[in-house]
Amino acid sequence: MDALEALNTRRSIRAFTSRPVSLDLVRELIRAAMHAPSAGNEQPWHFIIITDPAILGKIPDFHPYAGMMAEAPVAVLVCGDPRQEKHPGMWVQDLAAATQNLLLAAHAKGLGAVWVGVHPREDRILPLRKLIEMPEAIIPFALIPLGHPAEKAEAEDRYRPELIHLNTW
Amino acid sequence: MDALEALNTRRSIRAFTSRPVSLDLVRELIRAAMHAPSAGNEQPWHFIIITDPAILGKIPDFHPYAGMMAEAPVAVLVCGDPRQEKHPGMWVQDLAAATQNLLLAAHAKGLGAVWVGVHPREDRILPLRKLIEMPEAIIPFALIPLGHPAEKAEAEDRYRPELIHLNTW
Repeated sequence: MDALEALNTRRSIRAFTSRPVSLDLVRELIRAAMHAPSAGNEQPWHFIIITDPAILGKIPDFHPYAGMMAEAPVAVLVCGDPRQEKHPGMWVQDLAAATQNLLLAAHAKGLGAVWVGVHPREDRILPLRKLIEMPEAIIPFALIPLGHPAEKAEAEDRYRPELIHLNTW
Repeated sequence: MDALEALNTRRSIRAFTSRPVSLDLVRELIRAAMHAPSAGNEQPWHFIIITDPAILGKIPDFHPYAGMMAEAPVAVLVCGDPRQEKHPGMWVQDLAAATQNLLLAAHAKGLGAVWVGVHPREDRILPLRKLIEMPEAIIPFALIPLGHPAEKAEAEDRYRPELIHLNTW
């Protein structure tokens, strides 16, 4: 898929068929995520691939917008490690850029995906950290369920020229 | 350019030729930025296109990593409007996704660009807000100088399989 087309046509997909997604394909999406820029090239991220239905099925118990997680064949939990920061306060932006790369790669590969927010909500961070048995220092940042789309989302024109200014406000 | 290629080969470019960049092309990049996902589709962003050399030339006075701004033909200042938030605390992630889309679109179009961090540093936010004469409620988030590349940056393999975990940490 052409890059500009991928950028302008990606939409959130929350319904998936039961068709599996290979681990190799998920790793290819994570490869794209790892090529996001980060402050000082610190790469302060980790990626948990979740394929275990027992784990996926528990997420909607504490996350109000994660119902689709129980039917997704796989999800990626993008996590931050602020200990890697050279430029304090920038890790959230680094993680968001990586998350966006992952979503774009999924769309380019014909998969459906959606950005399910976790950070900065403690009521989502704490149960996820426990569920995945991760160290205290690591911060679950965003969940991305992935699968072959079971719904259609047409491209939407979101261009709003009134939000563009020239030289001054 | 292919989408996966754009994701995996984008690099920061900090040196530009004097060849101008058309406003139409800059708007096309901003169009891609506006198609980033945002929490609740709130789109809490504004984009300032800066072409005035007098304004570009003042930025390095207060920003230690913005020396290239004085020689860029154009820059985009990505700004946040947290008043648009439906999901508190998510606007930074929305803005980062839009910024990454803009960088990817620039790369796909053969332009060079770099993410110059602004938020959350007050010593960069306050002078930028004054320079661009923007309202108190608007937060300058990131600066992106754009131009035809005057340096080469080869693609770099940033894939680190040791940062991928399966189901548990």
